[in-house]
Amino acid sequence: MSELGKIMVLHGPNLNLLGQREPEVYGHTTLAEINTMLQEEAARAGFALEIIQSNVEGELINAIHRAIPECAAILLNPGALTHYSIALRDAIAAVPIPTVEVHLSNIYAREEFRRQSVLAPVCAGQITGFGVLSYRLGLEAAIALAQRSVRKE
Amino acid sequence: MSELGKIMVLHGPNLNLLGQREPEVYGHTTLAEINTMLQEEAARAGFALEIIQSNVEGELINAIHRAIPECAAILLNPGALTHYSIALRDAIAAVPIPTVEVHLSNIYAREEFRRQSVLAPVCAGQITGFGVLSYRLGLEAAIALAQRSVRKE
Amino acid sequence: MSELGKIMVLHGPNLNLLGQREPEVYGHTTLAEINTMLQEEAARAGFALEIIQSNVEGELINAIHRAIPECAAILLNPGALTHYSIALRDAIAAVPIPTVEVHLSNIYAREEFRRQSVLAPVCAGQITGFGVLSYRLGLEAAIALAQRSVRKE
Amino acid sequence: MSELGKIMVLHGPNLNLLGQREPEVYGHTTLAEINTMLQEEAARAGFALEIIQSNVEGELINAIHRAIPECAAILLNPGALTHYSIALRDAIAAVPIPTVEVHLSNIYAREEFRRQSVLAPVCAGQITGFGVLSYRLGLEAAIALAQRSVRKE
Amino acid sequence: MSELGKIMVLHGPNLNLLGQREPEVYGHTTLAEINTMLQEEAARAGFALEIIQSNVEGELINAIHRAIPECAAILLNPGALTHYSIALRDAIAAVPIPTVEVHLSNIYAREEFRRQSVLAPVCAGQITGFGVLSYRLGLEAAIALAQRSVRKE
Amino acid sequence: MSELGKIMVLHGPNLNLLGQREPEVYGHTTLAEINTMLQEEAARAGFALEIIQSNVEGELINAIHRAIPECAAILLNPGALTHYSIALRDAIAAVPIPTVEVHLSNIYAREEFRRQSVLAPVCAGQITGFGVLSYRLGLEAAIALAQRSVRKE
Amino acid sequence: MSELGKIMVLHGPNLNLLGQREPEVYGHTTLAEINTMLQEEAARAGFALEIIQSNVEGELINAIHRAIPECAAILLNPGALTHYSIALRDAIAAVPIPTVEVHLSNIYAREEFRRQSVLAPVCAGQITGFGVLSYRLGLEAAIALAQRSVRKE
Amino acid sequence: MSELGKIMVLHGPNLNLLGQREPEVYGHTTLAEINTMLQEEAARAGFALEIIQSNVEGELINAIHRAIPECAAILLNPGALTHYSIALRDAIAAVPIPTVEVHLSNIYAREEFRRQSVLAPVCAGQITGFGVLSYRLGLEAAIALAQRSVRKE
Amino acid sequence: MSELGKIMVLHGPNLNLLGQREPEVYGHTTLAEINTMLQEEAARAGFALEIIQSNVEGELINAIHRAIPECAAILLNPGALTHYSIALRDAIAAVPIPTVEVHLSNIYAREEFRRQSVLAPVCAGQITGFGVLSYRLGLEAAIALAQRSVRKE
Amino acid sequence: MSELGKIMVLHGPNLNLLGQREPEVYGHTTLAEINTMLQEEAARAGFALEIIQSNVEGELINAIHRAIPECAAILLNPGALTHYSIALRDAIAAVPIPTVEVHLSNIYAREEFRRQSVLAPVCAGQITGFGVLSYRLGLEAAIALAQRSVRKE
Amino acid sequence: MSELGKIMVLHGPNLNLLGQREPEVYGHTTLAEINTMLQEEAARAGFALEIIQSNVEGELINAIHRAIPECAAILLNPGALTHYSIALRDAIAAVPIPTVEVHLSNIYAREEFRRQSVLAPVCAGQITGFGVLSYRLGLEAAIALAQRSVRKE
Amino acid sequence: MSELGKIMVLHGPNLNLLGQREPEVYGHTTLAEINTMLQEEAARAGFALEIIQSNVEGELINAIHRAIPECAAILLNPGALTHYSIALRDAIAAVPIPTVEVHLSNIYAREEFRRQSVLAPVCAGQITGFGVLSYRLGLEAAIALAQRSVRKE
Repeated sequence: MSELGKIMVLHGPNLNLLGQREPEVYGHTTLAEINTMLQEEAARAGFALEIIQSNVEGELINAIHRAIPECAAILLNPGALTHYSIALRDAIAAVPIPTVEVHLSNIYAREEFRRQSVLAPVCAGQITGFGVLSYRLGLEAAIALAQRSVRKE
Repeated sequence: MSELGKIMVLHGPNLNLLGQREPEVYGHTTLAEINTMLQEEAARAGFALEIIQSNVEGELINAIHRAIPECAAILLNPGALTHYSIALRDAIAAVPIPTVEVHLSNIYAREEFRRQSVLAPVCAGQITGFGVLSYRLGLEAAIALAQRSVRKE
Repeated sequence: MSELGKIMVLHGPNLNLLGQREPEVYGHTTLAEINTMLQEEAARAGFALEIIQSNVEGELINAIHRAIPECAAILLNPGALTHYSIALRDAIAAVPIPTVEVHLSNIYAREEFRRQSVLAPVCAGQITGFGVLSYRLGLEAAIALAQRSVRKE
Repeated sequence: MSELGKIMVLHGPNLNLLGQREPEVYGHTTLAEINTMLQEEAARAGFALEIIQSNVEGELINAIHRAIPECAAILLNPGALTHYSIALRDAIAAVPIPTVEVHLSNIYAREEFRRQSVLAPVCAGQITGFGVLSYRLGLEAAIALAQRSVRKE
Repeated sequence: MSELGKIMVLHGPNLNLLGQREPEVYGHTTLAEINTMLQEEAARAGFALEIIQSNVEGELINAIHRAIPECAAILLNPGALTHYSIALRDAIAAVPIPTVEVHLSNIYAREEFRRQSVLAPVCAGQITGFGVLSYRLGLEAAIALAQRSVRKE
Repeated sequence: MSELGKIMVLHGPNLNLLGQREPEVYGHTTLAEINTMLQEEAARAGFALEIIQSNVEGELINAIHRAIPECAAILLNPGALTHYSIALRDAIAAVPIPTVEVHLSNIYAREEFRRQSVLAPVCAGQITGFGVLSYRLGLEAAIALAQRSVRKE
Repeated sequence: MSELGKIMVLHGPNLNLLGQREPEVYGHTTLAEINTMLQEEAARAGFALEIIQSNVEGELINAIHRAIPECAAILLNPGALTHYSIALRDAIAAVPIPTVEVHLSNIYAREEFRRQSVLAPVCAGQITGFGVLSYRLGLEAAIALAQRSVRKE
Repeated sequence: MSELGKIMVLHGPNLNLLGQREPEVYGHTTLAEINTMLQEEAARAGFALEIIQSNVEGELINAIHRAIPECAAILLNPGALTHYSIALRDAIAAVPIPTVEVHLSNIYAREEFRRQSVLAPVCAGQITGFGVLSYRLGLEAAIALAQRSVRKE
Repeated sequence: MSELGKIMVLHGPNLNLLGQREPEVYGHTTLAEINTMLQEEAARAGFALEIIQSNVEGELINAIHRAIPECAAILLNPGALTHYSIALRDAIAAVPIPTVEVHLSNIYAREEFRRQSVLAPVCAGQITGFGVLSYRLGLEAAIALAQRSVRKE
Repeated sequence: MSELGKIMVLHGPNLNLLGQREPEVYGHTTLAEINTMLQEEAARAGFALEIIQSNVEGELINAIHRAIPECAAILLNPGALTHYSIALRDAIAAVPIPTVEVHLSNIYAREEFRRQSVLAPVCAGQITGFGVLSYRLGLEAAIALAQRSVRKE
Repeated sequence: MSELGKIMVLHGPNLNLLGQREPEVYGHTTLAEINTMLQEEAARAGFALEIIQSNVEGELINAIHRAIPECAAILLNPGALTHYSIALRDAIAAVPIPTVEVHLSNIYAREEFRRQSVLAPVCAGQITGFGVLSYRLGLEAAIALAQRSVRKE
Repeated sequence: MSELGKIMVLHGPNLNLLGQREPEVYGHTTLAEINTMLQEEAARAGFALEIIQSNVEGELINAIHRAIPECAAILLNPGALTHYSIALRDAIAAVPIPTVEVHLSNIYAREEFRRQSVLAPVCAGQITGFGVLSYRLGLEAAIALAQRSVRKE
């Protein structure tokens, strides 16, 4: 039933360490577990996922470029690139695909320099602070946005 | 089946005008329609809602105080108070109830002074930019947070 | 002859003390005297006035909401709310009625924090520094703006 | 022996929760207990107290206006309004009554945004950081200021 | 009947292009039309006008110096000099003549750098945002200020 | 009856000139008169005072170091060092003795650079603006803090 | 062959000293030599030049006004006015003629205050750092822009 | 005739999308078309080009390192790296080859964060705002700079 | 005996009003009286003066250019241009003549915006706050600097 | 004797050019020479080194991830990434291995933007300014930190 | 003939090294030579000097206090204390004696942090940049100020 | 064997309390123990130490002055003076002796105001965060710097 379209899921720097790295901040769930959960949720809604994790800013940009024309939405946890990667921002703005920005921790309750996202202004919206639930809500939003654009065609 | 608990829904200043005010920014759905949608979603999950809209900062604070001990979570669209009401922030911090902050528009894509929430650091998390969907995702988060605290008891 | 329409006059916090409070800054005329003067001027131009003074931000917002659909313009001395009430700003922007911001004292010749109005960008214009004359010139501007919108209909 | 005059005691937003809210910051004494203690101290010095708590900025302003002509001093814990309520500042400056600003916690040892009081410049003085003792010292200061103005008459 | 005195009208840089330059910001009325309108209004009140337009900061300063002793008030649209000409500010402060600052557009609704007037603190007051009406209200204020000083003599 | 313990009283730079220096800001009482008043108050509460005035930052630091183990509290008017002496701050933080910071004038009603105390965050609390009464209230607070630590032993 | 149109070349304050003033920063070529070079280049492309140098901001504004309707592009080295002349900026924005901003030195490699151009946002583009070559490239750009508008007619 | 030397042309992140991405900002020409144009221009002047596009900051740095000793100049459109890549800046400063920075859009007429180039201070010069013409003028500058260094040898 | 050389004396905007304008700030001596005093002092030291006053920034720049080659030093009171005229700064830096900056009032004891001189970094030195004596000391410094350069020749 | 453990040595962007690039800032020693010296020092203390140089931020992050579980300490010269790579910071914070930050030049004696390290707060310590000696001291510190953690096991 | 009064000369931190320390900034004259020169000048004008050099802030404050009542003026080179010693500022403001601030180098042409004097606002005036001549001009100013106050008595 | 020279060791304010003061920040080793360790290390390298601790800024400056001509290097832990003592900075810059700045704690991982050293730009280098090891590494660096200057002679 995945004919409704495809959604790209992008995990930024250091997220491969999820479950190991600072669990008091990021929780104990591993990235693999999150990916499995997202796959199941997406399948239920009739969407396939393309999932990529990279610690290299340029590879995430390349992935976003590759999202055209197949993907109907992007679900993005940009990790630390949230705070300075204008190149990533330009990539998001350059493709005509709605992007949902998610964060596990509440970035607004952390260090000063983490309270600003240079990406948020070009994303459709942002979900922050709900742990793994942030990803699930983000996928829900991405699906809704994907369905809108699918319906338009 | 609402025995699982109650969730308070708070709408801040000017949200009573929803659907009429700057529809290009805030959409055409009215507050009544949103409330109905939220009531139905909550009912499905076994939760009752107490819904309040006020243009007076102090009345919203009063409402948050009244949320103890009955409500298991708060869903809050603080409107413009987002940006300066430290008194509202203190009220949220003062009650042992998880609060979910939602915004219809993407506040990070608007005027400079709207890109900061003085409330976010004391909320569980924030959802911004998905229009009416922000409310629905926010309710989902509030229910999840409420269920966790309910289960603990 | 008030068939030309109605203009709302709003006085913000502490303006009820006018004539008593810091007369070296705000002059000796009382708010009642100003209101009488404005009533007479408005009557001469064929406009009725609805005059409200409140120290509560939310009540001023409520008043602005009530201005629809009857009032053709708003004359507003926001008092100290000038400098921080984004909620009041949103109310002004939310109603399709031109608002004239007036100040008795020259706010740009006072303390640093009084030299910025968060309301000015959404008002039609601002008049500051002429004492009671500020109100009279402001009413004149409000009437002119009201007449334009009346003529359009 | 309360013929020496009256002192107004104002408690700002969220102080009604005292003893319940964040006791590690604000202590375990309730507002009622503080009020009783203040009543007794004032009585010993021959002063009556008018005590008001409100979460609404405008009601605190109304109370300050009502302080004329009966009260000889104001004892004010402005809560979070300390940091942004220029309207409250204007009310304090507008009445010819000395105001003593008190804080339970040491506001200068807390978050950045709590380290500035927009009210302090128009108060007679400020006492911060001594818990309930702040109130008692503040009352002492208010009584001393009240006695000076009483003696002048 | 122009024996009541003279008012100087100063138009700053680029205002000679009025009606041609960015009409969506500044309107379609030409400077000549504004001057004619001001002449008529002034005549009705018994005042003569001396009208000067210059793109050279120093010539505007020279004009202000020449205003002594003949002119009883100055009506000034400083154009872009509003935002940086401390020399013009000093000229205004140096002559004992009340100055009324006017702007066609609402400078507080424009680019960041236009939202500050270095002249306003030494002017009697400021009127901004009402298009040609700004000039008319400004003249009215100038006349009122001129009459006060005339009456004093 | 001074067996209850000792309190150190420290007066910072220029306070030796008290009564002579800018009396419109600091009043007419001399430092000797203040010291006498403090001695009497302390004696009544069963405390001895060690009183030091110095214009040298390092000598004040030396004095704070010497306060261990004899003194149960420190009463400190740091003078201008309030605003920049991080070394003094470190000394206060380094000794396990509660410190009360007092100021004669209301530092928050003075020049911009006087409105910040680098010491306040490591003091127990701060009293500012009540003239000589600031010292008396400060001693009262110091005694209360000293009694608490005495009782714990 | 100059029938293709005219281009205005404007040199701002102190550029008359070129070749004499700080040659280590600005080079040894004189303004006359630059003008001759520009004349020849323009002639080759079929354009006439009107060349003006002035140390007076207002005269440069006057020149820009005079550029209508004859000139098809403006080549501008604004000198120090680059950094503060909002009046010059308004003049550039007021005329419907593309302006090319050039600088001999690399303004971004110099003092902090030289790294910002208040003119750049209203110019077509900016060329900086290539010495006399900046002028030649700038003329090339101006000619290209002039040809486009000429072709449109 | 390419014996005169080689010039490196570097295109930064997202420039591979040229012609597709936000054409209202960046125009409709593709990167391939620009490269062809540059090749032809360079050939006419007797220079060969080495052209590289990468979305990875480190690969651009590697390319710059490889430019030694073959290339006589670098033509660089750094894309979003303009605004934060100090590593790219260090690479440019580390090689003894003049670099010309070009931008298609006028970066000084865009968002605040795009108005600063961390690379400009170490480049020979900068050309911004002329669309594809920026590249052509930049190549011309690069050739001139290359010829100078070639002549020196 | 004026063969020792010539010194240029430049008075900036509004200084022609000296003695009339804000005498509580600038004193009662007129510019003519200052010039006479300077002439006499210079004569005693064997120097001639060329004295210029202008309210036009560009005319002051022209004067500085004309100082070459005749004048051995410049004595400059730049008036309000002190705070923003980078063009004047460039003129001073462009001529190989030592410049002495003087101010009648203590600019560091005045409004915030007057506490910075953009000219000081390129002047030989600055004398501020001594009233007419500032001019006399400034002339003395200018003469000393002139004598040094004269001796070198 | 290298059984005591392994230490990772990371060289960031442009350090491969060491000895060639700006020798007046970074000295004449090449990276190969530094690596040899470090190898010898480490061997003497019974530690093996894993040495990596990369110009790609993400590859340095990958290396840090690979350091688990084998390496007992990391010696890092982050090059220009010092100043903005929050992703690198997160990688350092994510692995339970002490990191020593070293710099050849004194970064606090250079350009403003080089005086801040976003990595320092999550490193064990920082050594800056001693040229090649910085590396040797840094290795010494890394060995000491490695020995501590080795001893703990 | 020294009956006219006494002038205190204060040299701040590190000035004892004069002639040895950074001669390219501060010149080759020693402090002893300056003192001799000042003694001679003062004697000529009938004034005695009391000369003090100290590296301890508090000792300079003590000296200023001792200046009462004997000294009629103070000549002060505060060295680095210029930039942060609010305690020294308070001492200057506390004594009713005019103080002349002098600097050998032009502090406005040096590092950013040296361009602000916290003392200047309470000094009579400031002389900066003329090397040893600064001292001589400063003494002249101090003598003039001393004579004025002597004449008043 | 101490003929190789002498090194001065300076400990700033509050370091006499080492081992007692905030041991969780500064460790449990006393200053005496550190001095003994440094003496032994220095002796091994053939250097004598002169060790001074003072809480008075001016005494540290005096010590630095006394270091000439005997000491070949200075090892300095400036304590809190790190952050504001420009006088200490000037002393370091004034003597031709390399200075090594050390800190026990990682100052970049502490409060905002501790993250800047006003001394670092004039020191040879800085070592921070390694506890007592910082001193040992610092001595090593000081010895290396001393040997270099010794060898040069």
